[in-house]
Amino acid sequence: MSRLVLFITIIFAAALIASAQDLVAARRSLMPVPAGVVWKSGRLAVTKDFTVALAGKTDERLKAYVSRAMRRLEGRTLLELSRDFAADAGKASLLIETASTGSAIPQLGDDESYTLDIDDKQARLKAPTTVGAMRGLETFLQLLEGDRAGFYLPAVAIKDRPRFAWRGLLIDSARHFQPVEVIKRNLDALAAVKMNVLHWHLTEDQGFRVESKKFPELHTMGSDGLFYTQEQIRDIIRYAADRGIRVMPEFDMPGHATSWVVSHPEIASLPGPYQIERRPGIFDPTLDPTNEQTYKLLEVFFAEMAGLFPDKYMHIGGDENEGKQWAANPKIQAFMKEKGLKNQDALQQYFNQRILKFIQKNGKIMMGWDEIFQPDIPKNIVIQSWRGQESLAKVSRQGNQGILSNGYYIDLMNPASEHYAVDPLPANTTLSAEEQKRVLGGEATMWAEWVSPETIDSRIWPRTAAIAERLWSPREVTEVDDMYRRLDTVSTRLEELGLTHRRNQAMLLRRLAGGTNINALETLLSVAEPVKGYRRYQVRPQTMLSPLTGLIDAAQADAPGARIFNKAVDELIARRDVPQNALLIEKMLGEWRAAGDDLKDQTENSPALAEARQLAADFTALARIARAAFEDLKLRRLPTAASSSDRPAGWRDAHLKALDEIAKQKAGLELVVVDAVRKMVVEVSEK
Amino acid sequence: MSRLVLFITIIFAAALIASAQDLVAARRSLMPVPAGVVWKSGRLAVTKDFTVALAGKTDERLKAYVSRAMRRLEGRTLLELSRDFAADAGKASLLIETASTGSAIPQLGDDESYTLDIDDKQARLKAPTTVGAMRGLETFLQLLEGDRAGFYLPAVAIKDRPRFAWRGLLIDSARHFQPVEVIKRNLDALAAVKMNVLHWHLTEDQGFRVESKKFPELHTMGSDGLFYTQEQIRDIIRYAADRGIRVMPEFDMPGHATSWVVSHPEIASLPGPYQIERRPGIFDPTLDPTNEQTYKLLEVFFAEMAGLFPDKYMHIGGDENEGKQWAANPKIQAFMKEKGLKNQDALQQYFNQRILKFIQKNGKIMMGWDEIFQPDIPKNIVIQSWRGQESLAKVSRQGNQGILSNGYYIDLMNPASEHYAVDPLPANTTLSAEEQKRVLGGEATMWAEWVSPETIDSRIWPRTAAIAERLWSPREVTEVDDMYRRLDTVSTRLEELGLTHRRNQAMLLRRLAGGTNINALETLLSVAEPVKGYRRYQVRPQTMLSPLTGLIDAAQADAPGARIFNKAVDELIARRDVPQNALLIEKMLGEWRAAGDDLKDQTENSPALAEARQLAADFTALARIARAAFEDLKLRRLPTAASSSDRPAGWRDAHLKALDEIAKQKAGLELVVVDAVRKMVVEVSEK
Repeated sequence: MSRLVLFITIIFAAALIASAQDLVAARRSLMPVPAGVVWKSGRLAVTKDFTVALAGKTDERLKAYVSRAMRRLEGRTLLELSRDFAADAGKASLLIETASTGSAIPQLGDDESYTLDIDDKQARLKAPTTVGAMRGLETFLQLLEGDRAGFYLPAVAIKDRPRFAWRGLLIDSARHFQPVEVIKRNLDALAAVKMNVLHWHLTEDQGFRVESKKFPELHTMGSDGLFYTQEQIRDIIRYAADRGIRVMPEFDMPGHATSWVVSHPEIASLPGPYQIERRPGIFDPTLDPTNEQTYKLLEVFFAEMAGLFPDKYMHIGGDENEGKQWAANPKIQAFMKEKGLKNQDALQQYFNQRILKFIQKNGKIMMGWDEIFQPDIPKNIVIQSWRGQESLAKVSRQGNQGILSNGYYIDLMNPASEHYAVDPLPANTTLSAEEQKRVLGGEATMWAEWVSPETIDSRIWPRTAAIAERLWSPREVTEVDDMYRRLDTVSTRLEELGLTHRRNQAMLLRRLAGGTNINALETLLSVAEPVKGYRRYQVRPQTMLSPLTGLIDAAQADAPGARIFNKAVDELIARRDVPQNALLIEKMLGEWRAAGDDLKDQTENSPALAEARQLAADFTALARIARAAFEDLKLRRLPTAASSSDRPAGWRDAHLKALDEIAKQKAGLELVVVDAVRKMVVEVSEK
Repeated sequence: MSRLVLFITIIFAAALIASAQDLVAARRSLMPVPAGVVWKSGRLAVTKDFTVALAGKTDERLKAYVSRAMRRLEGRTLLELSRDFAADAGKASLLIETASTGSAIPQLGDDESYTLDIDDKQARLKAPTTVGAMRGLETFLQLLEGDRAGFYLPAVAIKDRPRFAWRGLLIDSARHFQPVEVIKRNLDALAAVKMNVLHWHLTEDQGFRVESKKFPELHTMGSDGLFYTQEQIRDIIRYAADRGIRVMPEFDMPGHATSWVVSHPEIASLPGPYQIERRPGIFDPTLDPTNEQTYKLLEVFFAEMAGLFPDKYMHIGGDENEGKQWAANPKIQAFMKEKGLKNQDALQQYFNQRILKFIQKNGKIMMGWDEIFQPDIPKNIVIQSWRGQESLAKVSRQGNQGILSNGYYIDLMNPASEHYAVDPLPANTTLSAEEQKRVLGGEATMWAEWVSPETIDSRIWPRTAAIAERLWSPREVTEVDDMYRRLDTVSTRLEELGLTHRRNQAMLLRRLAGGTNINALETLLSVAEPVKGYRRYQVRPQTMLSPLTGLIDAAQADAPGARIFNKAVDELIARRDVPQNALLIEKMLGEWRAAGDDLKDQTENSPALAEARQLAADFTALARIARAAFEDLKLRRLPTAASSSDRPAGWRDAHLKALDEIAKQKAGLELVVVDAVRKMVVEVSEK
């Protein structure tokens, strides 16, 4: 982060603090916000004598979790704490009491509630299960504060439980393979924000990422050698379970299936040969639902996977099958006629019914995307909605359970605030109480067209923490500025778990710059974001084999400087001026100007930055326009200023036109402060 | 790195560049410098059509290495290159010709030579073996340059081979366990600088880190559960072999053996029980050389390890046995008398002779530290010298082979320049040509008392690259400023391999600061280094269980601002003034002053930074003294200035006294610019 942005963050933080009481409150960064919090007076000091005791029914998972939590506490406090559990529960600094161990492999509906009571003498964490204690331990760690007197936990009474039982993250390991350590560190992060499902998207047109011992050709021919061995998968499932996280696999079919038919063209809907797909998009290769060989293979495959993945749910995808191969194959058309299947939806439903049997035979519950939802599907199929709340409501009205992912597509690079505003059960829902119960929760989706192990953390975090809060905290917790304030703290703390979302940006920029002079680039990226939605491929086409090391990959959603700048401009214009706003804008504009020369030089001389030449020029032009408008704006904010005259309409129009050009993406990046500058230009011009 | 330091780095780089020709030369950052380089005119463009062809005898190792090299090339250039090898050798951009595959498991003395010829049309890499081609590929990657016209490789003829056959890094995984991924990324880095040995220190008082299937209690009771499984070890050996790196294990004995006798007190020299040692230092527990049980266990153990580790060499440590337990045990004393063993050295030699048999029986060559060298040891024992060149010369004169580690103790936090100046065979060596041949090379040693997985990379890199150059390049390559210039580039490029030596500093500082405002801390660390040598434990005692997350752990050797500042002051005083020096000092002093308030605030309010309160105050005082002296110095450098009078001797003495206090370590850190400020004070004062 650039030093100016830091400076500004501090100013803003200061502005938020009205009194000493608020100071303490503002430092508190619980995320997700617990269901019930009552702050008390007093504090529990955290010193080198801090001890933990366990009571009730406990297990090795909890002991290990406590041990890891204590190592994190040590890391922050520099204290070396005892590694032994205290024998005397009454004297322990933290007493953890669990009524039962709960299920060793987490299951949907596990009781994750806990209470945490802290006074001057002790923190008491009580939970009905081990997993509840884990959630409480994360709250405990988030409570740590420090001041002149040392580290401490504020006195508080917390009574917490999740709003939704299903709070997940989908990781697409298929389009870009993600090594085991990437998955593990993200599991740690999920636990830190109390999420409880890893939805693991393992097969796609672009890759077959799970070892099959029954059909090894599936992964050997379908993955470029990049797949998870069954041993690695078991290791990850164990790692997740130790953090109270379920692992649900997804095997997408009948579409998104190119990597299947590379080795098994006989079960495709048209003759092969097929190759692993390298482009992003929706592709034709589809499993043949009229071929008994297809079912023979899938029956064995699902039995194998059911043995590998202990989770009760198995996701079969089912999305985005356009049926082109089905339409093009007369044999399939004849089959449809013969069976009275009117259209492709009916044929896919036929396919799903066959698959459902395999899944149920193994004691599992089937799950799929909106597309598998049909009026007459069995009630025990769970639907994941990428279409939206209305679609999900329909599912629920019909008696099926479902979860929401629409609005949580973090790959689209939208700001955290947008995701935060999406509620699986909004306040104005028309669902009955019974129907609402069938809305189980939601999942953020990390689709992996454009992420590498170097960048994936920065696409998931910190924004997924805002989604985690939406799914855990009471519906009423919606204040955006406070969410961002806490998100910033959560983001820093996630780093102790090995997450690279912050530290890798500088690394990516150093590689682009071919050296350590990256300040100007950091300034640029403090106000520039990757294009949103599905535009990236259109404006900057790449394949799955392309390097993901460009400026767009270093850039992140929620450019920190932009949010601050835009807000300051709004307040300045609305005359809700706090003294800091002018100072802040002044400083930012100064830094923008200072970056100009370096940006020009670097984009002209470094071939990897050549694509950003126009962006750099635009940024400089933007800084100039902003400066001119700001000077006028400042003048009229001074009560003692001589009356300033408005800029002529011609000046305004010329600049607005220039800003329209500047607003357009270049190198896949958008300067997300253009609107604010536009407002300033309009404000100081003739109306 | 602070932005000022960057700015200054650029100024300095600019100062180095006298002409357009030099510009190109200065950008070249080969490290280690090849044995022979002839720059030519012309360049080979690197475009998306860049292809590679293989000729001669090739193997899968090489293909995989080339593939990884091309991915790194893609990462830097943003180009998506073909993944297929070109069929037409004549038309390939890079033609790699290997005469043989060499040994699949690298061995001492493998031919690592190569030639690399680049002209406008093609780069031709020729090597007698796969491992030679690997070394050449790293040179190839280091040659990449870019300008307005795009990426390219300069035309050149390189004929290269290592000066020493043994170029290693010792990683102590015993005192602080390092996970597999830490070892792997460091193997990648070793290959990048053409090193070829991982010396793996696996057993110590503080931990037994290798799985023994014969004696599982050794690792289960001796490691806190932190050990490498044999499968992981085989994986790492394979990973290393794929990069042309040998893996030599060390099992330190008869001292440094506490973790052995936790489970086997019966083979200790005094009765137990024993516990895993948590402190740093030299400890008493020693294997009993008079007990046949000791040998029974070791015979089986060495046979097991000989099967696990394919390398021809096996290191038995042998260092720092003070023999206290031997002296205290009458039975051992009686044994010595009976066998005519005059002293503890003789007893240890007796022990070594017994061990030697086990090692030789398994076809291995024994290696140990200076202590196992005795006048009459067999000639096929190899000695690793922590004592120095003289000790090594003695070894060699007596007919034994040896390697040097004295001078390469990177854990002591000395500057790269110090290590760089240490030559296993200095120009003034008195050894005969034959004796010189027995000096095989050297090893950097990453002793792990004070490193965690978060910090270890920053202790190894980039300084180990300077040692790599010493061991590979001709003796005459000794220019320090140029070494540092190239080291900076190497350091940035190592990041593409996953090394965290740069990116983790900001992360550590954010944790300490409890937020993102770390600029002042970065400024402080740009001129502050950890105390050197073995002083850390004395001034800031910790155990192996303490968190390594303090300011001292974020600090690094070779503080980048200090080197620049000290040089600028020297030049200013010597009147070898380049115009940049004054500007540069001016800017740095401005930044020091600016950091003052934040440092005061942070060290007073953040308990984790409390230990640095006095350091922060001293830094502010130092900035003030430096500013006063600098203003005077500037005045007298201006030819047009009115003659300035010298400061009185009282002023000087008071400030020198203050500087003496400021120079003392606080929080384990030293401000390494105090000497330069002292020089300025003296310079502007009455003599």
